[in-house]
Amino acid sequence: MRVIGIDPGLTRCGIGIVEGTVGRPPRLVAVGVVRTTVGDDLASRLLALEAGLTEWFDEYRPEAAGIERVFAQHNLSSVMDTSQASGVAALTAARRGLPVTFHTPSEVKAAVTGSGNADKAQVAAMVVRILKLTAAPKPADAADALAIAVTQVWRGAVTNRYAAAVAAAKGKR
Amino acid sequence: MRVIGIDPGLTRCGIGIVEGTVGRPPRLVAVGVVRTTVGDDLASRLLALEAGLTEWFDEYRPEAAGIERVFAQHNLSSVMDTSQASGVAALTAARRGLPVTFHTPSEVKAAVTGSGNADKAQVAAMVVRILKLTAAPKPADAADALAIAVTQVWRGAVTNRYAAAVAAAKGKR
Repeated sequence: MRVIGIDPGLTRCGIGIVEGTVGRPPRLVAVGVVRTTVGDDLASRLLALEAGLTEWFDEYRPEAAGIERVFAQHNLSSVMDTSQASGVAALTAARRGLPVTFHTPSEVKAAVTGSGNADKAQVAAMVVRILKLTAAPKPADAADALAIAVTQVWRGAVTNRYAAAVAAAKGKR
Repeated sequence: MRVIGIDPGLTRCGIGIVEGTVGRPPRLVAVGVVRTTVGDDLASRLLALEAGLTEWFDEYRPEAAGIERVFAQHNLSSVMDTSQASGVAALTAARRGLPVTFHTPSEVKAAVTGSGNADKAQVAAMVVRILKLTAAPKPADAADALAIAVTQVWRGAVTNRYAAAVAAAKGKR
């Protein structure tokens, strides 16, 4: 199965494409970032992000998408920008009929390194090892996106079943 | 000029369509909400929101969009949901080539009531008066969307010039 991992962001949105199945080493297909211009207005940046993501979807045709869930950060304004980027990423994937799974940062760290408290360097080192790369992809958003893609390959189905159960329980309330 | 005011939200996204020009009383065209199902997964809800917004844009063909800027709230998880909805709303408008302006809650209150600290009831009462309605539209998200639309008619151009200046200054840094 080919999946896209997305580390949402407005200035740099990390993209990692990986192929694999549960229990086997995944293979790197492509990695990079979609950038939007800092000086542009927000709506134009969201439009540029959608256009950039669409190119990746068109070229690599992933079958599922994993997106890092935005979490509390010190800077609330950046949480909101990142959330808006995340909304556009989820929408772009869902519009193509792809299943979309959100993974928390600690789920990604745990899936890739075995510890939910791993730091960025440990995650990058494990991504290099798992995908047999010669060096960590740069910028960091690209390496993070690969970690999300690996998590999606290994944990996607489980996380989706859990999310479906939670959603079903909420719907019943 | 016909504008759409959007109070972004995932469970209820308020929509208000108003026609008018600076310095003259605006006229109500339409008001309502787009709802998405609480139990559904996030990506499906964003897709449903986009579909609902698209119907409003297609039917009423606004020439500009005003969106309330998401602000700090007690519940961080709802800030993130609202931000994702806001991103989808801005994207949907920008894709159609509409200018999109974000207004803070206090800008909307100040434009409609004269005070940035007005409460929800005062804002709703002024919306009724300005648009010559017989009662405040329900739910509250719909009334808020009308206040945003009135703000867009009266303040849109000014806010855009200010935002452009800020963006230009940021781009130069």
